[in-house]
Amino acid sequence: MTVVLKLGGSVITDKQAVEVVDQTTLRSLAEAVAAAGVPLVIVHGGGSFGHHRAAAHDVSTTTGTTDATVIASIHGAMQRLNTIVIDQLHTAGVPAVPMAPIGFAHRAAQADLHVATAPIAVAVERGFVPVCYGDVILDADVGATILSGDRLVTAIAQRLDAERIGLCGDVPGVLDADGAVIERITSYDAVADSIRGTAVTDVTGGMAAKVREMLAVGRPVRIFGPTALPGFLAGEAVGTLIDGAG
Amino acid sequence: MTVVLKLGGSVITDKQAVEVVDQTTLRSLAEAVAAAGVPLVIVHGGGSFGHHRAAAHDVSTTTGTTDATVIASIHGAMQRLNTIVIDQLHTAGVPAVPMAPIGFAHRAAQADLHVATAPIAVAVERGFVPVCYGDVILDADVGATILSGDRLVTAIAQRLDAERIGLCGDVPGVLDADGAVIERITSYDAVADSIRGTAVTDVTGGMAAKVREMLAVGRPVRIFGPTALPGFLAGEAVGTLIDGAG
Repeated sequence: MTVVLKLGGSVITDKQAVEVVDQTTLRSLAEAVAAAGVPLVIVHGGGSFGHHRAAAHDVSTTTGTTDATVIASIHGAMQRLNTIVIDQLHTAGVPAVPMAPIGFAHRAAQADLHVATAPIAVAVERGFVPVCYGDVILDADVGATILSGDRLVTAIAQRLDAERIGLCGDVPGVLDADGAVIERITSYDAVADSIRGTAVTDVTGGMAAKVREMLAVGRPVRIFGPTALPGFLAGEAVGTLIDGAG
Repeated sequence: MTVVLKLGGSVITDKQAVEVVDQTTLRSLAEAVAAAGVPLVIVHGGGSFGHHRAAAHDVSTTTGTTDATVIASIHGAMQRLNTIVIDQLHTAGVPAVPMAPIGFAHRAAQADLHVATAPIAVAVERGFVPVCYGDVILDADVGATILSGDRLVTAIAQRLDAERIGLCGDVPGVLDADGAVIERITSYDAVADSIRGTAVTDVTGGMAAKVREMLAVGRPVRIFGPTALPGFLAGEAVGTLIDGAG
C-alpha cells in the first residue's frame, strides 16, 4: 500500500532566506527514501522558494491573483525547487518523476478543490516515485490561489487510498506549550490551546491548520522531524500520531 | 469559442541545433497572439529541446523508458523551453499560464491516452492562455512514452470542444511534390503520394502523421507558416485546410 510523504519546505530549504536549499538535509532524506524502498508519493513544501513569492504578491489559499506573471513567478520558483529535489532523489537512487500540480489540480466555484491523480497512480504502479509540491493553481472564482502541500497530501492520500501519511517537518512532532512532543491527537479541541505556533512566513497556516487538516483525512498521519524519517518509513511510532478516525 | 494553436517546435527553435530558441520568430508569434485577443490554448512542440533528448534515449510515442532520470531529462528540457515561451508571451502582454502534460496526461493499458483538461478549461474561462507542450508522460504498459504536441492538440480540442485548430509550422502549409501549398485536404488517400516529407529529427512522425491525425479530429484544422498567424487568428483562409468532417 502506498505511503504519502510530505517533505516540509522548512526542512529542505532555509525558510528565512530566499531560494536557498538545505542540500545536506535533503540528501539525507533522499537516502532514507532510497533505503526504505516503500511505494511512495512525495509532496514537498515551498519553504523559501514558494512562500516569499506568494506573500510578496499577496496570494494565499483564499486570496487570488488574476495576474499571469504572478502565477508564472510562484510556479517557476516551485518548479526550480522541485528540480533540485528530484536531482537529489535520483542521486540517491530513487526513481523520482516530477508532477506539477498547476496542471492537475484546480478549484471550481466556491473553492471546491479538484485533484486529478490518474498519472500519479500510474507512476506508482510502474514503480516510480511521483514528486509534487505546494503550487499556485487555477481558481474559477478568483483566478488563481495557493494549493498548500498539506492540502495536496490529503487529497492524494484519499484518491489513492493511501495506507498512511508522514509529514516530515522541522520539529520532532506537534509540540505542547512546554515544547514536548504530543504523542497522539484524536481531536482538535483537546490540543487547541496547547499547540505551539510557528514564527516564520507561512502563507498556508502553520501547525494548528496542519493538525485540523490531518484529523479530517481519515487515515493515520505521523508528524516528525528529519532524523525520524527512516523510522517512519519502517513503520515505527515516531513523532506525533494524528488519528481523526481513532 | 476556443481556438487551439500549436506553435511548431521547428518554428520556435533552431531544430538542427541543441536547445536554441528562435527568439525573433517567437517574439513575432507572441505579438500576433496578443494583438488577436482570441480565447486560446497554446501547445508548443519540442524542436531542438525535446526531440534530441528523446531520440538520444530511444524514447518515442511507442517505445518507452523505465528510467526516471531519462523522464526527468526530457521533461526538464521541455520545461525550460516552456518557460522561455511563456516569458515571451508575457512580454507581449498575453496572460499565459504553464501546464505540464506529465501531470495531467497518461497512457493507460494498450496505449489508451487520457488527458484531464479541467484546469485548462478553468484557465480559459478565466481569460488566461494555458500553454502546454509535447512531453514525456507515464505509460501503464511501458513506463513512459512521448506525447506529441500534435496528439495533445487533438485531445485538448476534442475535450474543450474547440471551434478550430491552427498548426503553425515551418512551411506555409502541406506541400505537394512540386512544393506548392495544397489548399484543402479531406481524405488522406487523396494526398498520400504527393505529401513532401521532412528531413530533420522528429520523434513524432512528420507531416504525413500530422495530416492523418488532423483528419480524425472532427473540426477544421489549418496548417500554415509563421507569417500567416495573424491571418489565421482573424479567421482568414491561410495555408492548408484539413477537414476530415467536410
